[in-house]
Amino acid sequence: MSQKSLSDLNACSKDDFVAALSNIFEYSPWIAERAATGRPFVGVQQLFDAMKAAVGDAGPELRLALIKAHPDLANKTERAAGLTAESLSDAEYEAFERVNNAYRSKFGFPYIVCVRRHTRDSILRDFERRLPNDAAAEMRTSIDEICRIAALRVDQLMASDDRLKVHGRLSTHVLDTHGGRPAAGIAVELVELSELGANRVVTRTVTNSDGRTDRPLIGGRPVPIGRYELTFSVGDYFAGRQVATSDPPFLDRIPLRFSVSEPEGYLHVPLLVTPWSYATYRGS
Amino acid sequence: MSQKSLSDLNACSKDDFVAALSNIFEYSPWIAERAATGRPFVGVQQLFDAMKAAVGDAGPELRLALIKAHPDLANKTERAAGLTAESLSDAEYEAFERVNNAYRSKFGFPYIVCVRRHTRDSILRDFERRLPNDAAAEMRTSIDEICRIAALRVDQLMASDDRLKVHGRLSTHVLDTHGGRPAAGIAVELVELSELGANRVVTRTVTNSDGRTDRPLIGGRPVPIGRYELTFSVGDYFAGRQVATSDPPFLDRIPLRFSVSEPEGYLHVPLLVTPWSYATYRGS
Amino acid sequence: MSQKSLSDLNACSKDDFVAALSNIFEYSPWIAERAATGRPFVGVQQLFDAMKAAVGDAGPELRLALIKAHPDLANKTERAAGLTAESLSDAEYEAFERVNNAYRSKFGFPYIVCVRRHTRDSILRDFERRLPNDAAAEMRTSIDEICRIAALRVDQLMASDDRLKVHGRLSTHVLDTHGGRPAAGIAVELVELSELGANRVVTRTVTNSDGRTDRPLIGGRPVPIGRYELTFSVGDYFAGRQVATSDPPFLDRIPLRFSVSEPEGYLHVPLLVTPWSYATYRGS
Amino acid sequence: MSQKSLSDLNACSKDDFVAALSNIFEYSPWIAERAATGRPFVGVQQLFDAMKAAVGDAGPELRLALIKAHPDLANKTERAAGLTAESLSDAEYEAFERVNNAYRSKFGFPYIVCVRRHTRDSILRDFERRLPNDAAAEMRTSIDEICRIAALRVDQLMASDDRLKVHGRLSTHVLDTHGGRPAAGIAVELVELSELGANRVVTRTVTNSDGRTDRPLIGGRPVPIGRYELTFSVGDYFAGRQVATSDPPFLDRIPLRFSVSEPEGYLHVPLLVTPWSYATYRGS
Repeated sequence: MSQKSLSDLNACSKDDFVAALSNIFEYSPWIAERAATGRPFVGVQQLFDAMKAAVGDAGPELRLALIKAHPDLANKTERAAGLTAESLSDAEYEAFERVNNAYRSKFGFPYIVCVRRHTRDSILRDFERRLPNDAAAEMRTSIDEICRIAALRVDQLMASDDRLKVHGRLSTHVLDTHGGRPAAGIAVELVELSELGANRVVTRTVTNSDGRTDRPLIGGRPVPIGRYELTFSVGDYFAGRQVATSDPPFLDRIPLRFSVSEPEGYLHVPLLVTPWSYATYRGS
Repeated sequence: MSQKSLSDLNACSKDDFVAALSNIFEYSPWIAERAATGRPFVGVQQLFDAMKAAVGDAGPELRLALIKAHPDLANKTERAAGLTAESLSDAEYEAFERVNNAYRSKFGFPYIVCVRRHTRDSILRDFERRLPNDAAAEMRTSIDEICRIAALRVDQLMASDDRLKVHGRLSTHVLDTHGGRPAAGIAVELVELSELGANRVVTRTVTNSDGRTDRPLIGGRPVPIGRYELTFSVGDYFAGRQVATSDPPFLDRIPLRFSVSEPEGYLHVPLLVTPWSYATYRGS
Repeated sequence: MSQKSLSDLNACSKDDFVAALSNIFEYSPWIAERAATGRPFVGVQQLFDAMKAAVGDAGPELRLALIKAHPDLANKTERAAGLTAESLSDAEYEAFERVNNAYRSKFGFPYIVCVRRHTRDSILRDFERRLPNDAAAEMRTSIDEICRIAALRVDQLMASDDRLKVHGRLSTHVLDTHGGRPAAGIAVELVELSELGANRVVTRTVTNSDGRTDRPLIGGRPVPIGRYELTFSVGDYFAGRQVATSDPPFLDRIPLRFSVSEPEGYLHVPLLVTPWSYATYRGS
Repeated sequence: MSQKSLSDLNACSKDDFVAALSNIFEYSPWIAERAATGRPFVGVQQLFDAMKAAVGDAGPELRLALIKAHPDLANKTERAAGLTAESLSDAEYEAFERVNNAYRSKFGFPYIVCVRRHTRDSILRDFERRLPNDAAAEMRTSIDEICRIAALRVDQLMASDDRLKVHGRLSTHVLDTHGGRPAAGIAVELVELSELGANRVVTRTVTNSDGRTDRPLIGGRPVPIGRYELTFSVGDYFAGRQVATSDPPFLDRIPLRFSVSEPEGYLHVPLLVTPWSYATYRGS
């Protein structure tokens, strides 16, 4: 999907406008049609707000049709993450199917969640919270999630000076408080923890001369809600600096386990470390 | 094996003395016989020193015979830990056999190590370090290990006012620096980490009103050299105190991963924690 | 004042009992007289409770007389701390006089506070809180303070197995997290901070091989409510261990400034330190 | 002194070039004259390097004359800091005079130091180190200091895309690890500590919503070598957030005392704080 410029969308015919935005909301060209009347837009945020307002102003039938236009969760999960069905563990696949079936049989429409904002664990946890709700509440929640999905699609589609606030960031920083300097060359691994399936390595990297990683551990996208473990190979680092320690070293690979709760937030998880002590905190 | 008093050992016949100490060194009554001439002993340390001196003064043939009187490692490992062969993983069992065979074929005597001072991982690591040595060095090391084994047996056998320094301690302490008080009621789990086999839960306990555990995590015995993970259920603790956190909580089950290098030392691994930060250090 | 034994007080005549306790409450032998009927006492706590009950059961006139039997604050402050009038700063002396006069002119009785539980600053702060109260509240508070004074006197007077809970403790501990060991030989200074007068050195000491001080910084007495500063000479410590630092060292004399609010509590103020970082927390 | 552009200096006559740079080195136009032959310069660094090279290539007599062209320290100190003689304490004034006289009588030239890189304490400390040196060493050091003074003057004089590396930075950051957020609205005071004179407030400010200060505590100039104390009013902060603490609060105004050793470095001194604990470290 090649990127569109806002000025082109402001200037083109209504049909071209609707066509350009056809993939933002599933099978629902009426949203772009209604938003088109708001042109010209000064920015992407204003464009998106217009589409969101069109959804908000629509009657219940149209909103329900929008919800029903969405595919089942399991398929969506695969598609979002670029996964084939095989890459879900059996237990996960079954859990997702169970979720979707239970939900659909209660509400008559599919379970919708913006999967790019979640890990697999948190999708299932989210479902457990939502299943007891009544239909009205779930229609509201489904529309909210649909708009979150749409926001991410708009962000990807549009080239513009302003950006939608749909990207979070997860970063780290290692400070060697034994030597009083940033800790360079420390191997760092970020793993997404899973209860049903296998833990999944998100990224492996090495700290630079500033004790940071050249790029955020996660950036340019939502940081999926879920549990994570960061591991820092400090044993190798101090051994490489000829720092006297015990044998085996008291600290070798240090795990920091934490949860992400705000996918669009900036979360900084630093490590202050000596061969004999360490500390971490939620920074920003 | 019922406990003996030092005064009884000082007063009894030489034969009874030797019989009483028959299990301290494997199949080697000559050690107790020689030590008997040093009676009376003012304490257990002096008694043990006399036995150790007898070993040190013995000629090479006798020392080699002492070494050869020891069983193979795999058998010993099982016995020490009260394990049957089944409770070693296949990979561990093979590794132990390989160790013992390689060692025996090079040196002509079994690989001896005081297993109560080691985890399985550190036994294998110890072996890898010792295999390249020459026979003279390995005879010295073997005798050292035999004396460590003997010391633990003497300690168990003898009731006395003085104690051999054969026991270490591993303890913890949780301080709630959010509330400014010891953290009571925190579930704590200590796991011995293993590379070849399964991780093994050493103990599960709960912090008391002082933020400590009623008994040391490990005490009254050597703390086996190896890698460990302590896990603290701080999410439940702060939730139980109605402390506002994120959802899911930033910190839930906090793992501290560290190594033990001095089995007879006192190692204190505390946790200073808020819902958003924590720190640990090697205390004593 | 030589110490009395509880058994002697239980066995002696009523007159001797009253005489022995004549200095516990100022000019008020009736309290000991009434308490005498409760003999024999199983412990010092029970003895003190009986005296306190006698005060609590007395009528308003008697309680007021007890209050009025107390001297003015300035005199008492000097006596308690073993000070002459000269050792109060001019500003402090004036402040104490002003307190006492304002209080006496409002309530008709002297301002009473257990000075051994307070620094000079906190006495004045306490006064500022109490002056707006009504007479009934101040009579209750004065009686409470008189009982606190009495408890300290009973504690000093009596030799017994049980002790009144009138003693707090202030302690410290320095952990060298650069070297992974207790920091021995660190000079420590405790200063009581004052707003009106000069700061006052409470104690100077040096950490022992365990990183602690041989005796608590304050112990065997209440820890006076107030503001304190602990200073640790870590620059000298790390220089003495040939640890590479900057010139001048980033950290040299580290001050920890904190307040004491519970004179009978156990307050532990440790320092975790490297040449480039430190941390402290309220321990217990 | 209005700023000059590098292109103007590259294009102008030699006389104008020398005139423009007349204040960079005291009474020594020959330096600019020699540097002029290196035109055109691609940047300020290259210009300054040319002047420095001219000094380095000069013979001993010329170098000595350059040194002797400098005024006495006390005058210079006053000028640099915009101070009148009155604003030095008597003890400082005497110490500076003594330094200068002792130095001049030993070496026959004035004591030269780039005062903008130093606090008063560190000037005196620097002198104590240099006085025992021989004349050759002191000539080298004096020339180095003269070049440092010159670099700061060039930096102020020249408008250019590139900058000389003559500016350091001192910054802070307060993280509320009780609430898991940056601590906004905390009053911060930076004081330069002095042994001979009075401590001097460098700046007072308040943390912003990011827990930082809008501008560095010291920036856009060298951070003078010396001892400092940062004080953070955390008592008011937590009281304002209705956090339950003791009375008086355990922590109220927290002092961090540290030294600066690299005037051109970036020094970050953060505070991680709860009502019951805090930590700091040298960051960058």
